Amino acid sequence: MSQAALAVETGEPFMTSAVVVEMLKQLRALDTYDTYEGWSDEKIIDPLVMTKERKREIPIIGDPDEITLARIKAYYNSIASLIEKRAGKMAVPVINITHEGFGRAFVLVGKLIVVDKTLRDVHRFGFPSLEDLSTKTEAVIEKAVALIEQYKEVAEA
Amino acid sequence: MSQAALAVETGEPFMTSAVVVEMLKQLRALDTYDTYEGWSDEKIIDPLVMTKERKREIPIIGDPDEITLARIKAYYNSIASLIEKRAGKMAVPVINITHEGFGRAFVLVGKLIVVDKTLRDVHRFGFPSLEDLSTKTEAVIEKAVALIEQYKEVAEA
Repeated sequence: MSQAALAVETGEPFMTSAVVVEMLKQLRALDTYDTYEGWSDEKIIDPLVMTKERKREIPIIGDPDEITLARIKAYYNSIASLIEKRAGKMAVPVINITHEGFGRAFVLVGKLIVVDKTLRDVHRFGFPSLEDLSTKTEAVIEKAVALIEQYKEVAEA
Repeated sequence: MSQAALAVETGEPFMTSAVVVEMLKQLRALDTYDTYEGWSDEKIIDPLVMTKERKREIPIIGDPDEITLARIKAYYNSIASLIEKRAGKMAVPVINITHEGFGRAFVLVGKLIVVDKTLRDVHRFGFPSLEDLSTKTEAVIEKAVALIEQYKEVAEA
């Protein structure tokens, strides 16, 4: 990130959504080089907000860098962690990304695939707003928890 | 492979097992550099036979090279392909291997995980004999097909 203005303002209500709180925890956990030391939560989550303006500045085709890959990892770790918390069963994130930035992300519970996402344009990963990040991710988690309910035996296998 | 003697002899009965036949097909399919051009089937499958003597010659700790990774990919592609053939449902292999040669391999059918293997010492990947390769892999495939039968709805989800 450059010194450009943050897209996330102080006091933004979705900073306290379950998804954003978990994302911050995971991002800090994966920050092995202490890049985020001294950063505010808003500054850490900010690159996940991919506004139209920001998207326009990123080439359509590009290889994902390490920090973008770490963000995607944090994202699926967060989803798995929240599914685990709500369903009370171990959830395992599995991410496969090629060098070209295409791939697939899964969250597995027992023998059940509860999240299955095709990844494209990974170098431009993000959401239009924190609200969008929170609500879309909540929907993914709710669907996963419902699947676990529906196929309990497989999720426990 | 060096010019050392093959562990697989001509006329070896397991050369025609479903698993070995599929493995040869997958190995040739992944051979983008035509390394195997002019090779006999025995010579191509031979490195998968990891006899005690061969294992002893490989360091205990080591990074898997490209050709070993291609063999593992061919192996799980073969399993997926045979499951697909027998169950009549699309089976997707997913392999995650770190640079250190650890990882996990899955085969997915619908929302069902039908194969789930922890990978260790990937640089020494192989089986004591073609018989062992064939029978162990048959067992994995049969278990997967049984799971699909048992959880048909999930496999079709």
